Amino acid sequence: MTTAPSGAHTLLGCAHAMGVRVCFANPGTTELAVVRALDDLGEIRPVLGLFEGVCTGAADGYGRVTGTPALTLLHLGPGLANGLANLHNARRAHTSIVNIIGDHATWHRRHDAPLTSDIDRLGRWAGEVFEVRATADIPQVLRTAVEASCRPPRSVVTLIAPSDVMEAPSAITPTRESGAPPRSQPPAVSSQRISKAAIAAAGGNLVLLLGHDALSERGQRAAARIAEKCGARLLMEPYPAIVCCGGSLPRLERLAYFPQDVISQLDGATVILAGARKPVAYFGYPGEPSELVPPERLIDLSQAGEDSPQALESLAELLDARRTNSASVTESTATSGGTALTPADIAEALVTEIAEGTIISLEGSTCGGPYLQRAHRARRHYVMTNTGGAIGQGIPCGLGAAIGRPESRVVCLQSDGSAQYTLQALWTLAREGLDVTVIIAANHRYGILQTELRRAGAQAGKASAHMTRLDSPKVDWVSLARGYGVPAVRVDSADAFGTALRNSLRTAGPFLIECALP
Amino acid sequence: MTTAPSGAHTLLGCAHAMGVRVCFANPGTTELAVVRALDDLGEIRPVLGLFEGVCTGAADGYGRVTGTPALTLLHLGPGLANGLANLHNARRAHTSIVNIIGDHATWHRRHDAPLTSDIDRLGRWAGEVFEVRATADIPQVLRTAVEASCRPPRSVVTLIAPSDVMEAPSAITPTRESGAPPRSQPPAVSSQRISKAAIAAAGGNLVLLLGHDALSERGQRAAARIAEKCGARLLMEPYPAIVCCGGSLPRLERLAYFPQDVISQLDGATVILAGARKPVAYFGYPGEPSELVPPERLIDLSQAGEDSPQALESLAELLDARRTNSASVTESTATSGGTALTPADIAEALVTEIAEGTIISLEGSTCGGPYLQRAHRARRHYVMTNTGGAIGQGIPCGLGAAIGRPESRVVCLQSDGSAQYTLQALWTLAREGLDVTVIIAANHRYGILQTELRRAGAQAGKASAHMTRLDSPKVDWVSLARGYGVPAVRVDSADAFGTALRNSLRTAGPFLIECALP
Repeated sequence: MTTAPSGAHTLLGCAHAMGVRVCFANPGTTELAVVRALDDLGEIRPVLGLFEGVCTGAADGYGRVTGTPALTLLHLGPGLANGLANLHNARRAHTSIVNIIGDHATWHRRHDAPLTSDIDRLGRWAGEVFEVRATADIPQVLRTAVEASCRPPRSVVTLIAPSDVMEAPSAITPTRESGAPPRSQPPAVSSQRISKAAIAAAGGNLVLLLGHDALSERGQRAAARIAEKCGARLLMEPYPAIVCCGGSLPRLERLAYFPQDVISQLDGATVILAGARKPVAYFGYPGEPSELVPPERLIDLSQAGEDSPQALESLAELLDARRTNSASVTESTATSGGTALTPADIAEALVTEIAEGTIISLEGSTCGGPYLQRAHRARRHYVMTNTGGAIGQGIPCGLGAAIGRPESRVVCLQSDGSAQYTLQALWTLAREGLDVTVIIAANHRYGILQTELRRAGAQAGKASAHMTRLDSPKVDWVSLARGYGVPAVRVDSADAFGTALRNSLRTAGPFLIECALP
Repeated sequence: MTTAPSGAHTLLGCAHAMGVRVCFANPGTTELAVVRALDDLGEIRPVLGLFEGVCTGAADGYGRVTGTPALTLLHLGPGLANGLANLHNARRAHTSIVNIIGDHATWHRRHDAPLTSDIDRLGRWAGEVFEVRATADIPQVLRTAVEASCRPPRSVVTLIAPSDVMEAPSAITPTRESGAPPRSQPPAVSSQRISKAAIAAAGGNLVLLLGHDALSERGQRAAARIAEKCGARLLMEPYPAIVCCGGSLPRLERLAYFPQDVISQLDGATVILAGARKPVAYFGYPGEPSELVPPERLIDLSQAGEDSPQALESLAELLDARRTNSASVTESTATSGGTALTPADIAEALVTEIAEGTIISLEGSTCGGPYLQRAHRARRHYVMTNTGGAIGQGIPCGLGAAIGRPESRVVCLQSDGSAQYTLQALWTLAREGLDVTVIIAANHRYGILQTELRRAGAQAGKASAHMTRLDSPKVDWVSLARGYGVPAVRVDSADAFGTALRNSLRTAGPFLIECALP
């Protein structure tokens, strides 16, 4: 013990007793009591990020693969502000995160020192906000915060920790009551709703749209039985937090992006929602609908926060849908065959090469679509996607997954535009020696914006080109990676990519592959 | 005109008529109508940032050197969230900024699409928030927003622009009334307050603490006359938005950082505040005061938003303080003389080499203190500092200053830890070919946190070391700069630094010098 026990020791001791093991941190002066307590307790692993969005994205990835909350430790309002974008994604992913935000000493707040701001206002943008006002309150306030974050559907919470409360002497240690891990069992779905879904399932032209926990192995196996029995199609929500793919799991078609594509894809089907939100347009386009399935064709079997696997199993039983063999589909490998490297080449190589249990963090449409079309042909693995559209999620989320599942290789399949928002994550990969392969799909443009401009029928003028092209100068990802201590290589052919990928998957530690795409 | 005139055309046309010339942008789908209007109008220069904090920091720097508002164009709530930290600094700097935040179409908001969030909540954290709800409202709402941002003391405002309103047909063009540039003349200080200050000035042991507009050339010259007449000391606030230094301007002592140092420095003096906030502790330390000057020793001559130069001139006249020659102080150049490069060496070389009119963007204490101790010995130039403590300001702010004052060389004197938060600014420097020299003080640690830990008497344990040392691996700034297309060199001696600095100051375009510090 290098310092006298303080409020910060109580906070971390109680968090540890409740099952917290990792703190993704970018601390400043007002968080130093917590840093000193991390020294003394030695039970919660601190992981430093050079930017707060790295910390919050990592906490999201960690939560998605472990199901348990991580702490973040961020510096006052501006530190929380920098972490908000990835907290938005975590909120949409229903990930448990507990943000510890240091604040000025309570008696110092009213003096309007430079870093004074309304932390509560920012925190509420992402979820519930709690505050400790005295050391005696710490166990109960922390418990309430952690329980709130773990209550299905899980969520992001923020705990404001003024520096005087963290520094104050405190000998309070967790009791059996304050220290027990929180319950997080989702409630069961009522038999009425299951019956209602069963009636709808008998009607033909059926889609089962799976989201959240329905995308677990158990949920998918039950859904596959139903699909086989009813001749239904299995779809996944377009941006799952984490989905198990490959091996003997069924092929899941992904819900399309543009409204008219979704409408064509669903083709008038009745849609049973299992853990998925109802399909809505990503953006509102003039003359196109927001709601993509009329209410009379939507059946709400279960929502995020309810026990979707159990609901699907009950529905399968009610329909007398027996075990299926889910024969895995074999298709031709539609790669380019040409000399230039394409997203399809990248996706094919991954499908062939990744080991059982690999975790893929997908961000960006360049390779995201091609990969998810093929994911069912790989060995059994996990895919995380960008749930909320706040870009800069992919590498931090992969980082957090690697901390949470050190036995697994993580692959970040990442577009170059979105990678820029949190590229500082590369340094933490190097520092922690994490087994993460970062694949940068480098087409040096905001491809989605160019697509949207074309759809809007606009001829690209000078400003449009200037706002969507990133090729002057081209970012050199190999240099950036090396700048952060991550070995890297640039490839421009399918063969070279395959070789680089295989080498990386066999070698401990991080590696970055810049894929030069047209 | 590549598209039919829309609400976005009206918005930009009116903004241009009110004097707006630059838009620091990181647009997404909901901002594309504005991007298309930028194409057509061609009168507002779009500058792309790869991360929103780059855009807001650049708008701050632009506003500090021009006194006129820039637009930012950011993508929904998460885009604004990423820009908030530098908006916090801009708010503390009293910089006019008008953030245009695209939002979902008004009719799409209620469907909870992935990027839906409470933009208003975020915007209010930084300042006032406005929203356009129909094309007919655009001129008036924009005018109200721009006027609010320009009203002394200037401020940050946010204008929410739903995509359907921006896309809707609109032939409205600015009228003489809606298009006139807003007034921004600060009100005069009353003669009573000037008389009160004159009485206090007669009492001896006097400090004139200058902030905001009092740090203009005119403000300083008046303050110097008063100081000479009354035997007062001239101090500057610790974190000025922009201060004119060097040439024949008086030497300004900077207010210290730690509370006890400020108390010693002020030594029981009566403090006349001209444009400066009253001195408060940066953080609340146990047993140390927040307010560093007792109320009875504080005289409030003028505040930010009032006409401080005029108030100082009136005070000088009342005291019959005549013109002074402000003999520039000559001192020994306290450089290391050794072989290793030190912050003092960097500061000395800058003081010697920079041209008249150079703009220095300072961030971080490693070189910030040494530089400001010497700035009075350089040719007349400007220094911008981090006003709000949200780190990641320095390079973006320098970028914006270079856009606003293309005739001036900009030098970013920047600590390595804080540079990480918005390093993507390097790419925009390369793309726009800006004459910016970035000096990275690379000591590979959070020096201020190590100082604070020592002050708190803590022996650094494993976690403390892990949270404050950035040397494993050491970030390679030369690689990072090259990754963004900025030529760069690493130096470890005063001679090599001097050579690199001289070369860069003579060469068009950006350049980065990584200073290897112990």
